[in-house]
Amino acid sequence: MSADFLATWDKSDSEIRSVLDLAQKIRDRFYGGKPIKQFESGLAVSIFKDKSTRTRYSYSSAANLVGLEVEELDEGKSQITHGETVMETANMVSFLTRVIGIRDDIFLGVGHKFMEQTAKALDWGYKNQVLRYRPTVINLQSDEDHPTQSMSDLLHLANYFGGLEKLKGKKLAMSWAYSPSYGKPLSVPQGVIGLLTRLGMEVTLAYPSGYQLIPLIEKMAKANAASSGGKFSISHDMAGAFAGADAVYPKSWAPYRVMEQRTKLLMKNDESGLKELEKTALMENDKHQDWECGEKLMKLTKGGKALYMHCLPADISGVSCKQGEVSAGVFEKYKRETYLQASYKPFVIAAMMLHGQNLTLPYRY
Amino acid sequence: MSADFLATWDKSDSEIRSVLDLAQKIRDRFYGGKPIKQFESGLAVSIFKDKSTRTRYSYSSAANLVGLEVEELDEGKSQITHGETVMETANMVSFLTRVIGIRDDIFLGVGHKFMEQTAKALDWGYKNQVLRYRPTVINLQSDEDHPTQSMSDLLHLANYFGGLEKLKGKKLAMSWAYSPSYGKPLSVPQGVIGLLTRLGMEVTLAYPSGYQLIPLIEKMAKANAASSGGKFSISHDMAGAFAGADAVYPKSWAPYRVMEQRTKLLMKNDESGLKELEKTALMENDKHQDWECGEKLMKLTKGGKALYMHCLPADISGVSCKQGEVSAGVFEKYKRETYLQASYKPFVIAAMMLHGQNLTLPYRY
Amino acid sequence: MSADFLATWDKSDSEIRSVLDLAQKIRDRFYGGKPIKQFESGLAVSIFKDKSTRTRYSYSSAANLVGLEVEELDEGKSQITHGETVMETANMVSFLTRVIGIRDDIFLGVGHKFMEQTAKALDWGYKNQVLRYRPTVINLQSDEDHPTQSMSDLLHLANYFGGLEKLKGKKLAMSWAYSPSYGKPLSVPQGVIGLLTRLGMEVTLAYPSGYQLIPLIEKMAKANAASSGGKFSISHDMAGAFAGADAVYPKSWAPYRVMEQRTKLLMKNDESGLKELEKTALMENDKHQDWECGEKLMKLTKGGKALYMHCLPADISGVSCKQGEVSAGVFEKYKRETYLQASYKPFVIAAMMLHGQNLTLPYRY
Repeated sequence: MSADFLATWDKSDSEIRSVLDLAQKIRDRFYGGKPIKQFESGLAVSIFKDKSTRTRYSYSSAANLVGLEVEELDEGKSQITHGETVMETANMVSFLTRVIGIRDDIFLGVGHKFMEQTAKALDWGYKNQVLRYRPTVINLQSDEDHPTQSMSDLLHLANYFGGLEKLKGKKLAMSWAYSPSYGKPLSVPQGVIGLLTRLGMEVTLAYPSGYQLIPLIEKMAKANAASSGGKFSISHDMAGAFAGADAVYPKSWAPYRVMEQRTKLLMKNDESGLKELEKTALMENDKHQDWECGEKLMKLTKGGKALYMHCLPADISGVSCKQGEVSAGVFEKYKRETYLQASYKPFVIAAMMLHGQNLTLPYRY
Repeated sequence: MSADFLATWDKSDSEIRSVLDLAQKIRDRFYGGKPIKQFESGLAVSIFKDKSTRTRYSYSSAANLVGLEVEELDEGKSQITHGETVMETANMVSFLTRVIGIRDDIFLGVGHKFMEQTAKALDWGYKNQVLRYRPTVINLQSDEDHPTQSMSDLLHLANYFGGLEKLKGKKLAMSWAYSPSYGKPLSVPQGVIGLLTRLGMEVTLAYPSGYQLIPLIEKMAKANAASSGGKFSISHDMAGAFAGADAVYPKSWAPYRVMEQRTKLLMKNDESGLKELEKTALMENDKHQDWECGEKLMKLTKGGKALYMHCLPADISGVSCKQGEVSAGVFEKYKRETYLQASYKPFVIAAMMLHGQNLTLPYRY
Repeated sequence: MSADFLATWDKSDSEIRSVLDLAQKIRDRFYGGKPIKQFESGLAVSIFKDKSTRTRYSYSSAANLVGLEVEELDEGKSQITHGETVMETANMVSFLTRVIGIRDDIFLGVGHKFMEQTAKALDWGYKNQVLRYRPTVINLQSDEDHPTQSMSDLLHLANYFGGLEKLKGKKLAMSWAYSPSYGKPLSVPQGVIGLLTRLGMEVTLAYPSGYQLIPLIEKMAKANAASSGGKFSISHDMAGAFAGADAVYPKSWAPYRVMEQRTKLLMKNDESGLKELEKTALMENDKHQDWECGEKLMKLTKGGKALYMHCLPADISGVSCKQGEVSAGVFEKYKRETYLQASYKPFVIAAMMLHGQNLTLPYRY
């Protein structure tokens, strides 16, 4: 049982619950003005291979909360992608490090593997007594999962509906939505269906024909639902998915096959191929401008008042773009809720940091 | 009464005094080697829309001193200038944040407004219980005021002349000075005349005809002087302003109307227009090369030994440029004093941070 | 006796020993999970005029360990190279600063001088009561010495061979090795021969004819050996240097005269001249591809099992390049040892920080 947190599906139900419990406890202590710091010193290294403001902020906040100092590793992409160099770099930055957070979500089939390589390099360093501590690796978004997001989403749902147990049987629509941009990662919808199906929820994944996620993850969601007593289905009808839903999560993503093609083109540095792909993909997107979360769709949900969810920033029609994922009215109505949803992330990351060290509050150095 | 510090003219005299007192206390504790830390953890977010080394250092020092960790927000300019996005960004980076420091001084009519929008967004977040604490917004230089500078200047004057009360009746010349560069912000002279006229000082603002500051601020200085028992006058004669002065503050700035024009051109991305404006403005500057603070002018001051002030770095004739704001001799003579003047800034910022949280030493978490 | 650490050859033997002792003590406390923090607050400013990941990480780790916050100064190169400006910048960033770490290794004849100028500026500021504390200046690699590296190397040797005293009479080969790149600094070999010759070791410096280090430093190594009871010789035969060696340090560098020429060209911004020089230098390198640390050479060492050393990253034949400094087999065999060698650096830097403040564990603020 590794202390790393690379994907929720690597974790047992009891581990998931203990991280959520810890996150909630940290949050409660923070709200109560009580001390949370666990480390006297130590680094929290971060490796961002993709731009990030929100997750960077959440990671920094979490590190600061538990007593670690963030040190961002800013090497060129090529320098740390090969076997030996990952081994060396991972150990070189870990002598006084307790946590390594990694975002690597651009290349399909690459990000998760890089995190695993890093974890193995650290295992080697710790076993060979090069490292005093084995730093915990935390996935800050890969090509497969985005566990700091899905765990925050789950904590938000639990608090909104009155507890984890209350989620049993609740209907959630994880739906594709139109966006004028292209290439948005798959990790959010994958993370959501991979995790929430384990809580006995009835999850519908809705998208226009062709906008599939990684097939293995869709299959896993099906299996999760079967063993948790929940349901999982795929639909190509946004309205159908919204009907009777307790919560809706309308968000854009690029089809799995487009991301696969894009990865190949990016690796070949094929700029004209990339432009061509973008053009085709945007034209395909444009056919589905009606996949917008508006008032009408919301009326179809349970009592007309399902919880609207988004990982932010959303493409808001008439605000951040002409036509987007959500109408201005729906977004404004649920603004507070989406902000609260985001507010759990620093505490979830802090819990992953401490859980990885086998620390539970109120342990203090 | 807001806890933010956006401009000294938003603050009552007693608030100004209590921030100055606190800054002095923090400085005394620091010099005495006594603990100052007030927070166990928490972030101090900074947003620099303009380059900064000195203020960035001062802000980091202050945050560290009181126990906060700096997290710099590095979004593109366009991403956080529209209403909705300011709302979202401000809240997203504030879940564990106690202070937000902002430098936004390039566009006339923009910087101060952005700070106000940020403050309002945080009010909303706090009122709607999205935020546990209401972060204090601190102006690290806007198009209107530069309060961390003017408050440091004031503390320096108070220490130099033996107390705030001793400043009554003291004569200060805030004078334009020649510089071979162009486009220097107005916030320093505006901040100085807006604050020091409230202390009963006799402030002369001197500049070549045409180098006006924002008219409303010049008017405000006049009104301040009237109610504080001081004096405020505008002169176009550097020597006259220096005559009998207790302190002189010779510094270059761009005329208000040039800054206004520049803002319009910058917003239109009119590069040839900007080049044209720079050329014209520099030619106009060149006519006033005699506005240099040299030995002769200094002899005109009270006893020939007025305190020379500058926010640094100064354009020093024969050192950092051929012909500049101050002669090498005068600058060298007062080097220690200008360094001391700068040394107050970290303590002033720390005081603004704690004042905003209603914390007064020796409160400890 | 200055508290700065600019070069090991500025330091007495007893100072060297007390810094090493302190580094070992800090490391032991860290391994024992005991508190090390010495400062409640304060900054550790860093100035990197050359890229760095490893030393940056080590510096950050060390600062964090003793309780300081890193603030990186990122001014353009030109802005802080002239006399007056070094004076001002050094003081402006030092009001709350306890340590300033500098890497400036690109220009021969420049880096060390810049560090000395900084130290003098800080002396002035402290003497004139502009600064409350005199920050300690630490050389993070100059054109002359790389003391954080050589001190780590020495600590590694001492631990490997059972104590500083055991190093007496031990044979070390500091050897040039082939690399397909050019322009690697001289500071590592210079630092090694300048320090290890003081421990009574028998140091052979081996390089192809023409790959000389700074002559004065080669001379100093000779004198050191004479007074420490060790030996120092220069050889142009890698195999001869390896014969009977207890430890080998094969590493590439550019000849002293190439670096001198390169500095001149860089200062003139002579791009075609630089390209020409690179081409010539690489062609010269190519003649010495047999200077590779492989199995055969290692067999010549004492018992065939000398300690292989490298400051990392190494150019590994068939791994990071076609033909490099060391064979894949030798590197792999000693991987753990090279990682351990690197692991001492954060503790050495922490010791330099505390030593500079006259702090010795377990002093606490």
